[in-house]
Amino acid sequence: MCGIVGYIGTQAASSILIEGLKTLEYRGYDSAGVATISEGQLQRTRAKGKLKNLQVKLEGLEDPARLGIGHTRWATHGKPEEHNAHPHTDTKERIAVVQNGIIENYRELREELKAKGHEFRSDTDTEVIPHLIAEYLENPTGDAVLTEQSRLLEAARHAMTRLEGAFAIALISLDFPDELIVVRQQAPLVIGFGQGEFFCASDTPAIMPYTQAVLTLENGEIARLTPLGAEVYDFTGHRLKKYPQTLNWNPIMVEKQGFKHFMLKEIYEQPGVVRTCLETYLDTAWDTQSSHSPIKLNLPDALLDDLQHVQILACGTSWHASLVGKYLLEQVSGIPTVVQYASEFRYAPAPLMPHTLTIGVTQSGETADTLAALDMEQQRRSKSGNADYSPRMLGITNRADSSLSRLVPHIVDTKAGLEIGVAATKTFVAQLMAFYFLSLDLAYRRQAISLERLAEIIEGLRQLPAQLELVLESQERYVEELSHDFSETRDFIFIGRGINYPIALEGALKLKEISYIHAEGYPAGEMKHGPIALLDEKVPVVAIATKGTVYEKVLSNAQEAKARDARLIGVVPMNDPDAEETFDALLPVPNVDELLSPILTVVPLQLLSYHIAARRGLDVDQPRNLAKSVTVE
Amino acid sequence: MCGIVGYIGTQAASSILIEGLKTLEYRGYDSAGVATISEGQLQRTRAKGKLKNLQVKLEGLEDPARLGIGHTRWATHGKPEEHNAHPHTDTKERIAVVQNGIIENYRELREELKAKGHEFRSDTDTEVIPHLIAEYLENPTGDAVLTEQSRLLEAARHAMTRLEGAFAIALISLDFPDELIVVRQQAPLVIGFGQGEFFCASDTPAIMPYTQAVLTLENGEIARLTPLGAEVYDFTGHRLKKYPQTLNWNPIMVEKQGFKHFMLKEIYEQPGVVRTCLETYLDTAWDTQSSHSPIKLNLPDALLDDLQHVQILACGTSWHASLVGKYLLEQVSGIPTVVQYASEFRYAPAPLMPHTLTIGVTQSGETADTLAALDMEQQRRSKSGNADYSPRMLGITNRADSSLSRLVPHIVDTKAGLEIGVAATKTFVAQLMAFYFLSLDLAYRRQAISLERLAEIIEGLRQLPAQLELVLESQERYVEELSHDFSETRDFIFIGRGINYPIALEGALKLKEISYIHAEGYPAGEMKHGPIALLDEKVPVVAIATKGTVYEKVLSNAQEAKARDARLIGVVPMNDPDAEETFDALLPVPNVDELLSPILTVVPLQLLSYHIAARRGLDVDQPRNLAKSVTVE
Repeated sequence: MCGIVGYIGTQAASSILIEGLKTLEYRGYDSAGVATISEGQLQRTRAKGKLKNLQVKLEGLEDPARLGIGHTRWATHGKPEEHNAHPHTDTKERIAVVQNGIIENYRELREELKAKGHEFRSDTDTEVIPHLIAEYLENPTGDAVLTEQSRLLEAARHAMTRLEGAFAIALISLDFPDELIVVRQQAPLVIGFGQGEFFCASDTPAIMPYTQAVLTLENGEIARLTPLGAEVYDFTGHRLKKYPQTLNWNPIMVEKQGFKHFMLKEIYEQPGVVRTCLETYLDTAWDTQSSHSPIKLNLPDALLDDLQHVQILACGTSWHASLVGKYLLEQVSGIPTVVQYASEFRYAPAPLMPHTLTIGVTQSGETADTLAALDMEQQRRSKSGNADYSPRMLGITNRADSSLSRLVPHIVDTKAGLEIGVAATKTFVAQLMAFYFLSLDLAYRRQAISLERLAEIIEGLRQLPAQLELVLESQERYVEELSHDFSETRDFIFIGRGINYPIALEGALKLKEISYIHAEGYPAGEMKHGPIALLDEKVPVVAIATKGTVYEKVLSNAQEAKARDARLIGVVPMNDPDAEETFDALLPVPNVDELLSPILTVVPLQLLSYHIAARRGLDVDQPRNLAKSVTVE
Repeated sequence: MCGIVGYIGTQAASSILIEGLKTLEYRGYDSAGVATISEGQLQRTRAKGKLKNLQVKLEGLEDPARLGIGHTRWATHGKPEEHNAHPHTDTKERIAVVQNGIIENYRELREELKAKGHEFRSDTDTEVIPHLIAEYLENPTGDAVLTEQSRLLEAARHAMTRLEGAFAIALISLDFPDELIVVRQQAPLVIGFGQGEFFCASDTPAIMPYTQAVLTLENGEIARLTPLGAEVYDFTGHRLKKYPQTLNWNPIMVEKQGFKHFMLKEIYEQPGVVRTCLETYLDTAWDTQSSHSPIKLNLPDALLDDLQHVQILACGTSWHASLVGKYLLEQVSGIPTVVQYASEFRYAPAPLMPHTLTIGVTQSGETADTLAALDMEQQRRSKSGNADYSPRMLGITNRADSSLSRLVPHIVDTKAGLEIGVAATKTFVAQLMAFYFLSLDLAYRRQAISLERLAEIIEGLRQLPAQLELVLESQERYVEELSHDFSETRDFIFIGRGINYPIALEGALKLKEISYIHAEGYPAGEMKHGPIALLDEKVPVVAIATKGTVYEKVLSNAQEAKARDARLIGVVPMNDPDAEETFDALLPVPNVDELLSPILTVVPLQLLSYHIAARRGLDVDQPRNLAKSVTVE
């Protein structure tokens, strides 16, 4: 999603802004811009497309400014053109604003401001902000609560009370050359404290090179940064006491390590990620004689005991991981489980059920829909006044320092390390691991499966890193060759059943995200209820057919597709004659316990998507239109 | 799905078979064939494609046969080529077999029979059956339980014990010119009793012109028809007592009544269907002073009282209707509800929850996956031995005479009349009506909403027929013109939220089914989590944005799509300036209560699909690869 960086201090602002924006590139954007203030000049430079276009424009400009803001924009309102890129200014071009999020009532505000003579120059929702602040600077309202020394802050604060929606903002004004104003309302914003210099950013990587001391703003807070420090207020103008924290996540320098793209590097990191998860959460000394759970999630009994129901809230790839989680929680732990789109749940939550564990799953820990749905559910249950309905909230995330961890009391950290590719790969596998651990821990607590079966599954989990390495080693060259066959293909269908139905969805999403091929996943048994009409010789069908309860059924469904001339690609068990007879191309994986198969079956699909997109020359790590972390609704 | 017809009697069999197959055309097929026996000749004629191809081949053939079988095939194993069309024969071409369903273990059987010298001439699973019967005729096994006079029946019965899967079969043999053998195992088959003539068919329309007296075979039954009557046995050879029933559904002669296609006719029948549903299920005398429910579903208290949970099992379009049902049951009746794909539920049923109503939704009442899932659930609950878990089963279907009504004790008949178009339209709307009635009845029983709100919704329901007529009258010409713009379009995205999210799914499915355009539906809030990567100026986006809780949110999501150059089509409230500003093309519907909007919003999407497909010259009523009634797994 969009990225914000701001600086006030002693160094040249523009180069710090550009470096900061670069660290946020992975979040996805389609235009960028910076604005700085020095010597009575507000200098604004913007460019469509990648950051390097902006850098070219900035080259040769001697910019001594020590104050500035920068932005990478992912278009919401208005196309990704230069005139829509941030920063935006007021009519007199004395105030510059960058914003992440959506201003929902921008239409009314724009009409109101136009009527007062403000001239608009973009199609964005953001542009109302500088005009609104200019309006309040020129015509302060009677109820100003801040001092005359804080006129910019006061006008900005007042403007904030007029905005509806979710947003994070940074702004500067030519008339206040020693102030950087920042705001958080439902979209993340963090302040960094350097030595005589201060930063703001929508995400920590942008300021990590400079300082480890940060203050994460809460919703409804507005702060003024000066060369001397920061002051934080709420939207009523009340000053708040706050303390910086020291970051505990020390990022290693991220490099591609010889891989052509971060996505491919991250696919190859998966055996290591699974290994790390096993080392972190599995008691290696456990055996069937032990008197404790083999799983070390360290979650309290009050969270997990006597559960009657689990509901999982998520979006996108995390939603797919949650569907696998549902299968495990139901079939292994014996607990009825529902998975809801967070964006749907927010506006139509299910009637309350008692003794329910609510799980939010978000890689970034910042997904706006998921956070809002969790917050609503937590409040709804707290207010019910019935102990049976009291909230039991758990988060699964790859960012233990995120907003999610401040929202819910318990977190399972998926430990996959920073993921740069916009299309999630290793964090998806890590989310699956979290669900294995959670479902096994619950199965142990509830005695839902025998200790022998538990030991068998655990032994299977331990084999996964080596099996993942085998899949990667044995398939990459073949998948790359296979991808040549699809250079003109416009449509793909992915089918699976049972625990591999969500993997079909995920395989389709990966391909769609990075290759822009219209790929769609289906539970295999549903094909004949409509989608099969699409099939002909131009539409390849990828079927996931691993040994287990639905193996023969998937083969039958694949036969139905073959009868319509579709080219059939099978993710199948190694050395399986039935599969060899059925499919035109084979992507074999080790023949493991059906329950564990998703960890392996997703890998050939990741590789297939990667190679098809890479062969088409597409920007695999930063696909068009997409954002790594979706911090708007 | 496939269709079976069989005849033994006094008239020319071949013309009766062709007429019977014509009545089953609407079920979908891609090849057809007949086989008859007379004067020492087994005459077999088959053709790829439509029935008229078969008729052309039969013209001029003088066929005096009084015994025969016919089939329309929807390919499962093997392409839709003539050599794969039914009937199939044994090596010596003395036995002819037609089959609906899937023989799961056909590979092993084929290997076994090949080893014994049988020669196979097709790629189908069905062909193992005539060979297997020939094998048992030549080499009867020691445990024959039927008499010497029933050698064909005995061989066929024996063959049935070897088959795994779901199937219905009709077969004849040159050596037994007075016998027609029929079998039912998980796929429907009905016997008709004429005056000195006997029929079999996979669905009643094929025999309705000749008789109203029918016997519906049960699973695991095999029958022998002779010129004198029928004998029914189980697969162990035990003879069963059975009695014909008189059909209570008297089909009106179906015609297109001036419409170019049945689908368009059925779209236009929707106001009438809704009116019939209201007349049938709504107590017109009810007001807030009444002391009984306004809904006349006549379902017993034991089915509906003290419910804690509802689970709905369905496939395809019925699954979409069920998602609307979930919204209503949760938000109106206050009961937590889950909707499951029947094909998925069969192999991974959720852990049992107490006091649960299970609803199966199938237009035809014959959908194999749904019937199997309901049967499994009913048995699982009966066997649980815990009264809290005892089965409470309800069916929603348009065919009250179907297998569904024999499987579950309570039925809501959707009263839409016979639907011929393969793409469901009026039966979808009728299913929605069933869910309105059920959710309102439950809301009344549970006092989940006020009587005033109940009266308001009922008043809204009463307006729907006239509002539907308004939508049809005002839009058809415009939608037809609009469809011209999409003559080259290959992809479509449909988005909606809340109660109209399932309508987005249904709109996409309609278009996919009949136009073969790759259309996909999404909850609007999910677009930014991946699918938005697909969007550019070539991919139109259809958004359903009716007034209510999520109206502004859908407009925001539509803006995000517009920013990627997508052409935006909005199903929107009439006379709405915000909508007019946002969308490139408008499909306005009356501004009704959000809860009732799906009945109206689906109609422009049906029209859009119809006109896009019709303009491309496609066979709207019988799209490729599809079947009206999916009686295989």
